[in-house]
Amino acid sequence: MPTILGQNQYGKAENRVVKITRDGATHHIKDLNVSVALSGDMDDVHYSGSNANCLPTDTTKNTVYAFAKEYGIESAEQFGIHLARHFVTSQEPIHRARIRIEEYAWERIETSDANSKFIGADEVKHSFVRKGQETRLTQITFDGENWEIISGLKDLIVMNSTNSEFWGYVKDKYTTLQEAYDRILATQVSSRWRFNWTDDEQKMPNWEKSYEQVKKHMLQAFAETYSLSLQQTLYQMGARIINNRSEIDEVRFSLPNKHHFLVDLEPFGLKNDNEVYFAADRPYGLIEATILRDGCEARIPVDMTNL
Amino acid sequence: MPTILGQNQYGKAENRVVKITRDGATHHIKDLNVSVALSGDMDDVHYSGSNANCLPTDTTKNTVYAFAKEYGIESAEQFGIHLARHFVTSQEPIHRARIRIEEYAWERIETSDANSKFIGADEVKHSFVRKGQETRLTQITFDGENWEIISGLKDLIVMNSTNSEFWGYVKDKYTTLQEAYDRILATQVSSRWRFNWTDDEQKMPNWEKSYEQVKKHMLQAFAETYSLSLQQTLYQMGARIINNRSEIDEVRFSLPNKHHFLVDLEPFGLKNDNEVYFAADRPYGLIEATILRDGCEARIPVDMTNL
Amino acid sequence: MPTILGQNQYGKAENRVVKITRDGATHHIKDLNVSVALSGDMDDVHYSGSNANCLPTDTTKNTVYAFAKEYGIESAEQFGIHLARHFVTSQEPIHRARIRIEEYAWERIETSDANSKFIGADEVKHSFVRKGQETRLTQITFDGENWEIISGLKDLIVMNSTNSEFWGYVKDKYTTLQEAYDRILATQVSSRWRFNWTDDEQKMPNWEKSYEQVKKHMLQAFAETYSLSLQQTLYQMGARIINNRSEIDEVRFSLPNKHHFLVDLEPFGLKNDNEVYFAADRPYGLIEATILRDGCEARIPVDMTNL
Amino acid sequence: MPTILGQNQYGKAENRVVKITRDGATHHIKDLNVSVALSGDMDDVHYSGSNANCLPTDTTKNTVYAFAKEYGIESAEQFGIHLARHFVTSQEPIHRARIRIEEYAWERIETSDANSKFIGADEVKHSFVRKGQETRLTQITFDGENWEIISGLKDLIVMNSTNSEFWGYVKDKYTTLQEAYDRILATQVSSRWRFNWTDDEQKMPNWEKSYEQVKKHMLQAFAETYSLSLQQTLYQMGARIINNRSEIDEVRFSLPNKHHFLVDLEPFGLKNDNEVYFAADRPYGLIEATILRDGCEARIPVDMTNL
Repeated sequence: MPTILGQNQYGKAENRVVKITRDGATHHIKDLNVSVALSGDMDDVHYSGSNANCLPTDTTKNTVYAFAKEYGIESAEQFGIHLARHFVTSQEPIHRARIRIEEYAWERIETSDANSKFIGADEVKHSFVRKGQETRLTQITFDGENWEIISGLKDLIVMNSTNSEFWGYVKDKYTTLQEAYDRILATQVSSRWRFNWTDDEQKMPNWEKSYEQVKKHMLQAFAETYSLSLQQTLYQMGARIINNRSEIDEVRFSLPNKHHFLVDLEPFGLKNDNEVYFAADRPYGLIEATILRDGCEARIPVDMTNL
Repeated sequence: MPTILGQNQYGKAENRVVKITRDGATHHIKDLNVSVALSGDMDDVHYSGSNANCLPTDTTKNTVYAFAKEYGIESAEQFGIHLARHFVTSQEPIHRARIRIEEYAWERIETSDANSKFIGADEVKHSFVRKGQETRLTQITFDGENWEIISGLKDLIVMNSTNSEFWGYVKDKYTTLQEAYDRILATQVSSRWRFNWTDDEQKMPNWEKSYEQVKKHMLQAFAETYSLSLQQTLYQMGARIINNRSEIDEVRFSLPNKHHFLVDLEPFGLKNDNEVYFAADRPYGLIEATILRDGCEARIPVDMTNL
Repeated sequence: MPTILGQNQYGKAENRVVKITRDGATHHIKDLNVSVALSGDMDDVHYSGSNANCLPTDTTKNTVYAFAKEYGIESAEQFGIHLARHFVTSQEPIHRARIRIEEYAWERIETSDANSKFIGADEVKHSFVRKGQETRLTQITFDGENWEIISGLKDLIVMNSTNSEFWGYVKDKYTTLQEAYDRILATQVSSRWRFNWTDDEQKMPNWEKSYEQVKKHMLQAFAETYSLSLQQTLYQMGARIINNRSEIDEVRFSLPNKHHFLVDLEPFGLKNDNEVYFAADRPYGLIEATILRDGCEARIPVDMTNL
Repeated sequence: MPTILGQNQYGKAENRVVKITRDGATHHIKDLNVSVALSGDMDDVHYSGSNANCLPTDTTKNTVYAFAKEYGIESAEQFGIHLARHFVTSQEPIHRARIRIEEYAWERIETSDANSKFIGADEVKHSFVRKGQETRLTQITFDGENWEIISGLKDLIVMNSTNSEFWGYVKDKYTTLQEAYDRILATQVSSRWRFNWTDDEQKMPNWEKSYEQVKKHMLQAFAETYSLSLQQTLYQMGARIINNRSEIDEVRFSLPNKHHFLVDLEPFGLKNDNEVYFAADRPYGLIEATILRDGCEARIPVDMTNL
């Protein structure tokens, strides 16, 4: 046979599971989108169509919903760890499981004192509105021995309306850009960070607290960096996370430079004193980099922050 | 000529304007997407291609940016009123202007005490993160005499995890649905509301405060209604707005019923006690209705909430 | 009660139905997305949550699939007519049904002579690739007596690389646009056309042939019009349809002017002789109009072409 | 410093360039979306914000448009090769360039004999309609010595309405799927293939012909394979390409199993003889694999087909 099979994986993608936990009248939500990818001894299914080693993708979907009941959803990371361990340890032909999860955050709707009387309760505790800011992400990979946990977020849009410059760059025959000494810096953050928790013997991080802290440090570093380039701001965002969160060894960012161009109002006899901007769609600068704890290996794939 | 021209309008759509207002070191943002549509004496441009009455769409774009400087952006509604008045009163062939605006909300990034020292200031007041919840909307129409202001929102996702039933419905030969006595009720609100402010002699509403209050009443009515149908909840949401906000005479909703189906876990020997749900995409129930202040005329177009 | 219910409708939206018809080894596909909206005596469901008059949206979904079997899908229009008639005539409280359908076109995959021998047949007749050009649309409305059939298409992207000018327009203080004597004209057509078939006594149009012919005339008019404005091209597209298709009385277009800006290459010592263009996203001119057969009434809603 | 910089790249993404070539009255279009990513000696821009080695992303954009004039666009691959070579050879700090290109295909609008007389020409040769089927892709990488060319496509939707089975799979405690002996097999192909052209000394492939042939073989293999699993069909699609196109050593696919579920019509007294299907959105099986020419190394990244 002149052709051979290389890397392959399969599973059910985008299983939308919502878990309600009832603590008396107070309800709690976890809202996830779970994608399963399994690898192993799958040559025959590709070469001959024999499915003898193939656990159906439909079964992987059922497992997601069953596990939401059996284990609950304490965090996306913990839920993915349960799933990955199950597939690798329960099916001999499966050697590796990768679970990707998106999580959507909700907050409670605050109800009025006046109206709450109509429903005979002090407060409504089962009503929610989706926060709608960033989407939280995690990827859990297990090969039967070691864990790799890469969490992250996407679609977090941030802007500094000042404290950003860009000058002193290379000028070749195609360069027309004017240097900028006070510009808007805006981006839509896509980021992934890798935990140094890799086996069951280690103490597991507090996944929920870690996420909150990483997001906080990322936002603060963005706000507090006086920027000479988006690359510099990116580096500060990553370094701030590594320096403050000992559970994390690597961070990668993909930061589109969401250009805000100062509109030329002179034809209309008006002066634009850094007030009126055109927010452009395409093209956009795209700045991507990995920041590592010194001595650690880079393992987050280059394209992963663009998914 | 066997064919004639009917309703027509033109203009520049989706002008993305960001306005920064600097109050010392404290900056404020308004972030809008403005679409202009003009009508009037435009037969010749259609019949013969004569552009003698045609103000270029490019000019309408320039006007949006120039007005952001000249008038500032106090609110989307006020900004649209300036624009609509200008086009109708400054160009004789233009008899009617319709301005549609989307607004994206931002909140401040809270910075740390520790790090703020590095930047030599008590606090950073120029850094923002997009809230990302709903998109605020408004449509301003002016014909030279009267105003019609229809504001609204879209993509506000809400959920009640209990206090929703659905039973007692018609059953025909194609009915297989089981009655439900405790279900999740979730929807992605698209809503528009019409103000009774119609001419310059009236006192203008406080557009910013009105929006906040309408959103609050809408969310509270959703949370506090014990629901026997999404139609009933919709009506309560509209009635609550009309009853609490005297500046509004009409509300329309388009509410997709974002189905959350209880997963059947019995094949796996598990009981699903209203805990684990599959969040479905398509198809979805779609419930749409207008609620009016008694005696008022309906003017919000049926399709407007689906745009 | 100070608030009252206005226009309202409900039903299941986006029922994705694929119908395979087997003519021996030769298969045929119809691939539709069907949305049902019903109106009638529905006050109580809104006011009190009584569902006594409410046929569940789930039942309307079931009916779509059952009818695909019972009636087949000869055309989207014919299928919608079966559905609308059923809902209005079978349920007393339902007075009006509106069926919206999107249709996706497929073409056959041409198979090779050489390989077809492996499968023991002259040709494979059950393999398809989605054409992917425009999406075909129809809306069927029935009130128990009269029919209104509005068909259309969206996302048909067209371009003329010459034979377009734009000059002689109004110039006010915000006008900076340079006149153009040879520009690219490109748009993404969204169109709806209304048939004059309104009751069962009339001979029904050939819906499939009508669609093909309308699309052909629309494209040819776009190509063959020497354009002095997009408005003029739009009018010619509509007039060509009305003049050639006696079954149609009204056409409406929403045509975004997909700007292609000539790139200034002079800073690089290059001349751009109408060769290199930047295809812009936003903002865009948006030109919308209705063309009517003389003497006919306009009935296509203004916003319908933007859905 | 406890943190260090890892892999990084930057450039202008999504430069939309349209090139018109005029061959007398006959025009030709190339319509591309070009993204530039440059790497090299960029530590200082990240660490200190010094831009001394940084060619602005704006300059990379200008270069795209200038090169469309200077070199024309013979094919996406050839155009990307010109760009990548330029950045690496003209700027000392840039050691590696990666150019990603999307290409949109257009076809001519056929004009009518009758109407063409009005415009005084035999035929219109400057009018186009976008084909709208798949999006063609390429990625060109150059490090100053070697080339890596990975081309591909996405969003090509295909369906077999028969000749697909799925049975004989693993059954664990979470398995409820029924075996299928005649099902619809449908997918939305995302594929990338790597050329064995790696240096300037080799004869360059005919990029345009190669693309057409690869697409043809991919479609034919999909149509002609009697499928026992989507994995088997995927393998046949890849093997057919490798076996027929000597310029290609590696192919990777990401194939979502676009489920078409047979609708249960028995509650309505109807038999569904493989006729009426519900086309589901989420979740979906996702099957991904690489097929290699025996002896060749795999180099297409796992995530690249999901971008």
